[in-house]
Amino acid sequence: MSDYYERPTLDNMGLSVGKRVRLHRMMYEHGPGNGKLLILPIDQEVEHGPVDFFPNPDSKFPQFQYQLAKEGRYSAIALHYGLAAKYLHSFAGDVPLILKINGKTNIPSDAEAFSSLTASVEDAVRLGADAVGYTLYVGSPAQDADIAQLAEVREDCDRFGMPLVVWYYPRGEAIEKKGGRDSFYAIDYAARMAQEMCADVTKINFPKMDPQRDKDAPEPYSELELRGSEALRQIVRSAGKTFVLVSGGSKISDEDLLQKVRESMEAGVTGLIFGRNMWQRKMEDALKLTERIKDAMRAF
Amino acid sequence: MSDYYERPTLDNMGLSVGKRVRLHRMMYEHGPGNGKLLILPIDQEVEHGPVDFFPNPDSKFPQFQYQLAKEGRYSAIALHYGLAAKYLHSFAGDVPLILKINGKTNIPSDAEAFSSLTASVEDAVRLGADAVGYTLYVGSPAQDADIAQLAEVREDCDRFGMPLVVWYYPRGEAIEKKGGRDSFYAIDYAARMAQEMCADVTKINFPKMDPQRDKDAPEPYSELELRGSEALRQIVRSAGKTFVLVSGGSKISDEDLLQKVRESMEAGVTGLIFGRNMWQRKMEDALKLTERIKDAMRAF
Amino acid sequence: MSDYYERPTLDNMGLSVGKRVRLHRMMYEHGPGNGKLLILPIDQEVEHGPVDFFPNPDSKFPQFQYQLAKEGRYSAIALHYGLAAKYLHSFAGDVPLILKINGKTNIPSDAEAFSSLTASVEDAVRLGADAVGYTLYVGSPAQDADIAQLAEVREDCDRFGMPLVVWYYPRGEAIEKKGGRDSFYAIDYAARMAQEMCADVTKINFPKMDPQRDKDAPEPYSELELRGSEALRQIVRSAGKTFVLVSGGSKISDEDLLQKVRESMEAGVTGLIFGRNMWQRKMEDALKLTERIKDAMRAF
Amino acid sequence: MSDYYERPTLDNMGLSVGKRVRLHRMMYEHGPGNGKLLILPIDQEVEHGPVDFFPNPDSKFPQFQYQLAKEGRYSAIALHYGLAAKYLHSFAGDVPLILKINGKTNIPSDAEAFSSLTASVEDAVRLGADAVGYTLYVGSPAQDADIAQLAEVREDCDRFGMPLVVWYYPRGEAIEKKGGRDSFYAIDYAARMAQEMCADVTKINFPKMDPQRDKDAPEPYSELELRGSEALRQIVRSAGKTFVLVSGGSKISDEDLLQKVRESMEAGVTGLIFGRNMWQRKMEDALKLTERIKDAMRAF
Amino acid sequence: MSDYYERPTLDNMGLSVGKRVRLHRMMYEHGPGNGKLLILPIDQEVEHGPVDFFPNPDSKFPQFQYQLAKEGRYSAIALHYGLAAKYLHSFAGDVPLILKINGKTNIPSDAEAFSSLTASVEDAVRLGADAVGYTLYVGSPAQDADIAQLAEVREDCDRFGMPLVVWYYPRGEAIEKKGGRDSFYAIDYAARMAQEMCADVTKINFPKMDPQRDKDAPEPYSELELRGSEALRQIVRSAGKTFVLVSGGSKISDEDLLQKVRESMEAGVTGLIFGRNMWQRKMEDALKLTERIKDAMRAF
Repeated sequence: MSDYYERPTLDNMGLSVGKRVRLHRMMYEHGPGNGKLLILPIDQEVEHGPVDFFPNPDSKFPQFQYQLAKEGRYSAIALHYGLAAKYLHSFAGDVPLILKINGKTNIPSDAEAFSSLTASVEDAVRLGADAVGYTLYVGSPAQDADIAQLAEVREDCDRFGMPLVVWYYPRGEAIEKKGGRDSFYAIDYAARMAQEMCADVTKINFPKMDPQRDKDAPEPYSELELRGSEALRQIVRSAGKTFVLVSGGSKISDEDLLQKVRESMEAGVTGLIFGRNMWQRKMEDALKLTERIKDAMRAF
Repeated sequence: MSDYYERPTLDNMGLSVGKRVRLHRMMYEHGPGNGKLLILPIDQEVEHGPVDFFPNPDSKFPQFQYQLAKEGRYSAIALHYGLAAKYLHSFAGDVPLILKINGKTNIPSDAEAFSSLTASVEDAVRLGADAVGYTLYVGSPAQDADIAQLAEVREDCDRFGMPLVVWYYPRGEAIEKKGGRDSFYAIDYAARMAQEMCADVTKINFPKMDPQRDKDAPEPYSELELRGSEALRQIVRSAGKTFVLVSGGSKISDEDLLQKVRESMEAGVTGLIFGRNMWQRKMEDALKLTERIKDAMRAF
Repeated sequence: MSDYYERPTLDNMGLSVGKRVRLHRMMYEHGPGNGKLLILPIDQEVEHGPVDFFPNPDSKFPQFQYQLAKEGRYSAIALHYGLAAKYLHSFAGDVPLILKINGKTNIPSDAEAFSSLTASVEDAVRLGADAVGYTLYVGSPAQDADIAQLAEVREDCDRFGMPLVVWYYPRGEAIEKKGGRDSFYAIDYAARMAQEMCADVTKINFPKMDPQRDKDAPEPYSELELRGSEALRQIVRSAGKTFVLVSGGSKISDEDLLQKVRESMEAGVTGLIFGRNMWQRKMEDALKLTERIKDAMRAF
Repeated sequence: MSDYYERPTLDNMGLSVGKRVRLHRMMYEHGPGNGKLLILPIDQEVEHGPVDFFPNPDSKFPQFQYQLAKEGRYSAIALHYGLAAKYLHSFAGDVPLILKINGKTNIPSDAEAFSSLTASVEDAVRLGADAVGYTLYVGSPAQDADIAQLAEVREDCDRFGMPLVVWYYPRGEAIEKKGGRDSFYAIDYAARMAQEMCADVTKINFPKMDPQRDKDAPEPYSELELRGSEALRQIVRSAGKTFVLVSGGSKISDEDLLQKVRESMEAGVTGLIFGRNMWQRKMEDALKLTERIKDAMRAF
Repeated sequence: MSDYYERPTLDNMGLSVGKRVRLHRMMYEHGPGNGKLLILPIDQEVEHGPVDFFPNPDSKFPQFQYQLAKEGRYSAIALHYGLAAKYLHSFAGDVPLILKINGKTNIPSDAEAFSSLTASVEDAVRLGADAVGYTLYVGSPAQDADIAQLAEVREDCDRFGMPLVVWYYPRGEAIEKKGGRDSFYAIDYAARMAQEMCADVTKINFPKMDPQRDKDAPEPYSELELRGSEALRQIVRSAGKTFVLVSGGSKISDEDLLQKVRESMEAGVTGLIFGRNMWQRKMEDALKLTERIKDAMRAF
C-alpha cells in the first residue's frame, strides 16, 4: 500500500458544507449507517423500457420501489424526474433521493452514445434531493458533448452544494476494440475520469477478466493477469477521493450476490447500487435480502 | 391487480396548484365532466398539410373546429400557435386550449424525425391556455435533441403551473426493426417514458397486435400473445401517474369508433383525442357523434 | 363557399395594436389605398447576386428602387439590412419598410436550403420598419432549424407589435418528388403552414398546373385537374387569416403581368409583390405600369 | 454613369456618430489624408502560418509592422487580438487599429471554409480600435453559420458605433465551378453582399479575367469580355455605399504594384490593403514605396 | 538577431495587473526563482488513462505529485478540476495551480480532435489558481469549434486577470501530410498561433527534424536543414511575446533530459513542463533530479 493513498472520507475530500450535509444524510442517517452506501436504482428503465418489470409485475409501479427503499432503509433511491415529482411526496423525508438527470432510450443505435439532460441540478434542489446522478459514456465518439455537459452539471453542483454521482459507462466501438466495456482497462480509466471530473461518488461495474479480450487493451493492461477482485481494488484506488459504488447488473443468485458484496467491500468500495437484483422479487424477499446485504456491509 | 398500483387522480399526482386548476377545468368543467378528457385536435395538419380537409371542405377553416369544440363542449382543442392567435379571441373562455408547441412537415424524410418548437410555454400562458402539447419521437436517432428539448419544456411547465401533454410517437428505423411503431413493445415503452419525463397526460395509439412482426421485439414482448385491449390495459399501467389519451387515427366507421371508445375506457384510459374522425364530417353529424362518445365515456 | 370561411381583415385576425398600426399604414396610407398591398422587393439580390441588374443598369443602385417605391407610392419596399441602413434616411417616412431578416446566396447547393438571420426584429424596430420578412423553405431537410428560427422571430414580432411577412418557398429533393415546388400541393401546404406559424402576410408563387408532375403529389392532389386560378383560390383559403401576396417571378410581358394581377385579385389575394417585373425597366415605364397595376387592384 | 449612383462619402452612408468619428480618423487624420485608406495587414498570418516571413526575417516580429505603420503613417494596421494586446501599448494613438476578429488556419481542408471568432467587437472597443475586420467566405457550404455570425457582429458594431470592414472571400467547390474565386462574377457578387450585409468597408481582390473559366459563370457574366479594370469599376458600383479596398496579394514588382494602385483608384476604389508587398522588404524600402503609393493615391 | 525582436518580459507584454501578479508568483516566488518556469503536469492522465502510473505505483495518487511540487518548489502544478478540488486544500499557498480547463480521453478516434471544457476560468478564480491551461489542436478539422472556445476562454482570462497557458498540439490528417505533428513547420505555426490568440505562455514539443517527412511541409520548411535546437530558437521567436515552455514527453534518461533542458534554455525558452520524466520515479530521485534541473535553469 502506497504512503500516498488516503481512503476518501467526508473529512479529506475538500467538500463544501452542503455536499457534506447531504452525503452524511445518506451515509450515516440512512443505509447501513456506518458510512457505507446502499442505493436502490430504477433510473435504468428509461434506457431499458418496461422489459425488466415482467419477472415481478409489482415492480412496474414506482410505489413498490419507494416502499422497498423506505422499509429497507436504503441510503437513497435513484430515479428520473417524473418518478420523483409524482411519487416522492408520499415518502418525503423517509427516502433520500438521487435525482438522475440525464438519459436516453436503447432503441436507436448506441454507436454514438450520449444521454441528454432530463432535468437540472436546480430541479434536484427544488425536490429536496440529496444528490444528482449523471451518466457519462467514457470513450463514446460523442464524448466532447458529454464532457462539456457534465462539466456544467458539476459547476451547478458546486454552486448548490449538491453531491454528484457519476455513472461511468465505457461505451463505443473504440473501447470494444481495446478489451471491451467491462475490462479492467476500461473501468480503471473510468474510475480515474470520475476523480478528474470531480465526481463525489461513481458507479462502476465489477470488472470481468477475459485474457483473450484483454490482449487488445493498451499496455500494461494487456499483460496483467489479475483476479477480478484484485482489479477492483486497483480501480478503487484509481478513483482516489471519489467514493466507488459497484452495480449489481442483471439478476443473479442470492449467494452470488452476497459474494459480490463481500468481494466489493473487501476491495474497498464505499457502497453498492443494486436494482434488478432487489426489485425483481417479492417485497418480503427483497426486504430479507436487503438485511443480509446491509449486515454484510456492516462488517467492513 | 397489484397492490402497488394507484390510478392517477388530481389528488395523487403531486400536482402544483396551477396544474391542478387547469386540469380540473378540462376534466370537470368541460368535456364529459366526470374527470374524463375528450380532446379535439387539428395540430396534425402541420404534419399532413391540407390533404385531410378534402373529405369535408368546411374543415379547412379553423372556425369549424372551434365551433365543434364549443358546441360539443370538448375538454379542449389542440392546435398550433397561429390557429390560436388568429381565432381563439372569438371563443375565449368557451374552449379550453392545448397549445401544441412543436411540429414539422411530413415532406422530407422521417428517418431522423424531430419536431422543433413552434411556440413556447410562455406563449401558452399569454394565450390563456390550459395545457401545452409536445411531440416526442421515441427511438428516433435524434432522440438526444428531443429529450433535451422536452426537458426544457417540462421545466417551463413546472415554473408556470402548465399541464404537459406529450404525444409519444415511436419512430425510426430501429423501432421498425423491433416490431414497428404501433406494437405493444413500442407503445408500452412510450407510456413508461411519458411517466419518466413527467408528462401529466400522454397521447398514444391503440396498439396493433401482429404476431409476425412482434417476434422481432425484445423479450418478453416477442412471445406475448395478447389482445389489443389487454395490451392497452398494461400500457395504461406503464404510464403510472400519467393520464393516457388514445388517439383516433384516420377515419373509421362510427360503430368501430364507439367500440374503440369502450375498449379504451375499459382498459383504464382517461380520455380520447379524436380529430379526423370528428371533423371529417358535417357539423351536425359531428355533434351527434360527439354526444354518443361522451355518453359512452360517462359510463366509466 | 363555406359558412366557416371569413376573409382576413384587420378586424378579425386577432392583431395587437402595434401590428394593426403598421399594417394599416401599408394597406391604407400607402399602395392602392383600399386595403390591398403592392410591395416592391429587392431582397432577392442576396440570393441571386447582381445578375438581375444587367437588363436595366440603373437598377443596380438601390436609390432607383427607393425612388420607384416613393413615386409609385408602393405599400412598402422589401430589402435587407444594409440597403435599409445606408439609404432609407433619404426616404424616411415616404417609403414603408419591410426588413427582410434572413437570407443566403445561391452559390452552394440548395439541397439543404436554409437562410440564416441577417438582422433581427429589434433592428427592424430601430429602423422604423412596418414589417419583417422571413424566408421559410418548406420541406427542406433543414426544416427543423428553420421552423425553430421562425418561431423565435414570431415571438419577437409579437413582443414588438411587428407584422410578420413569410416568404414560403417549397424546396428540396422531397418536394421535387411530389410534384415540384410550384405545384398546387406544394403551395397549398405552404399557405397552410403560413397560417399555422402565425404569419400575418405570406408571399407565394402562382401555382403551375402540370398534370404530368402532379401525379406524384399525395392524394387527392394527384387527381385534381384545376386551372391555376382556381388552385390559387383554394390556396388563399388554406392561408385562412393570413393575407396572401402573389409574387411576379422573372420578367414577363405587361399584358401577361396585368392578367396575373387580375387573376390573383379574383382569387382573393390581398396583394402583389413584383420586383424584377417592375425595376427591370426604365423609371418612367415602371411608374406607368405601377399605375396600371394599382388601378387594376382598385377594382377589387 | 447612372443618375442613381452616388459615390459613398461619410455624409451619405447613414453612419452613426461613432462610426463617423472612427472612419474620419482613418481617412483624414492618417493615411494619404484625402479620404482614402491605406491599410497594413498582418492578420493573414493566422491563415498562412509563418511562411510569409522568410523573405524578410524582420517581418516575423510585429514590432516591424507597427513601426512601418507608424512611420509610413498608414490609415490603420489590421491584425488579430494577440498582436494588438501585446504590442499596441507602445504605439497607442500613433497607429489606428482594425481588429480582425475571426480566423482559421489553412492546415485542414478548405472545403467548408469558415472562420470562427477570435475576438469580439467589445474587445475592439476596449483596445481603442477604429474598426473591426471580419472574413466571410461567400458561397462556402458553411455560409449559414457565417452569415449568422456576421449579422451578430454587425449588430454589435451598430451598438458600439464601430466601423465594420468585411474581407469577402468567394470560396468553395461551387464557386470554382462557376468561374473561380477571382472571377468578375464571384467578386461582383461579393461586393453586393458587402453592401447587403451593411459592411462599411469591404476588401476584395482585383478580378482576373479568364474567358476560358468565365464561360462557366452564370449569364451574363459568361459572355462579358471586359478588361480587369473595367470589371473592377463595375464591382465598385455593386458595392454601392460600401467603401472598397483592393488587396495586394502575394508580392509583385514595384512597377506592377503602382500600376495596380493607379488602375484601382481610377476604378473608384477608396483604398488599398497591402501586406506582403510592403513588409516583405527592408524597412527603408518599405517606407519609400509607401510614400510612392500615397502620392499616387493623392492624385485621385 | 533582428532589431525588432524583444524577448518577452513581464514589462513589455501589455499585461494587466492581475496577470502580472499571478505570473510573478510563479516566475519569481516559486520555481527556479529567476523568472523561469518549471511546471509539474498531471493533466495528461485525462487523455491517457492510468497507464502512466504503472512504472511508479505511488504516482497514481495525486498526493504524490502535490508533495513533489511542494518539496521541489515547482513554479506550479497543472491538473484538472477534480484533482484541484479534492487535494489542493492540503497544499493551499504552497503550490501554485495551473487549472487545466479542457480535455478528452484518447479512447475514440483522434481524427477530429477537440477537447471540451471541463471547468471554467471562474472555477480557476474560485480555487485561487495562478493560471488556466487550454489545449488547442492546431489544424484539426474541428478547429472552428476549438478557436471559438479558446477565444471565449481568453476573454474570461482578460476579465479576471488570469494568465492563459495554451497547450498547442498540431493534430489531424492534414498536418500528418505536411511533415507531421512534431515537425518544425507544425510547431512553428503553433507558436505563432499562440501569440495571435494572445496566450501568455505556450507549451510545445521539442521539434523533431526528419528530412524525409519535412519534404512534405510547405516551402521554405521543406528545404530547411536545421538542427532541432536551431529550429527551437526560431520557434521561440515565432511565439514573440508569448513565453514558451518545452514539454518532456515520455520518459528518457536523466542525461538526455538535462541535455534537453540546456538546449531548450539556450534556445531562449522561458520554462519546462516535465511530468512523466519526474513522477515516474521515486520521490527521492524525483526531488534530486528536480534540483539538478533547477540548477541548470538558473544558469540562464
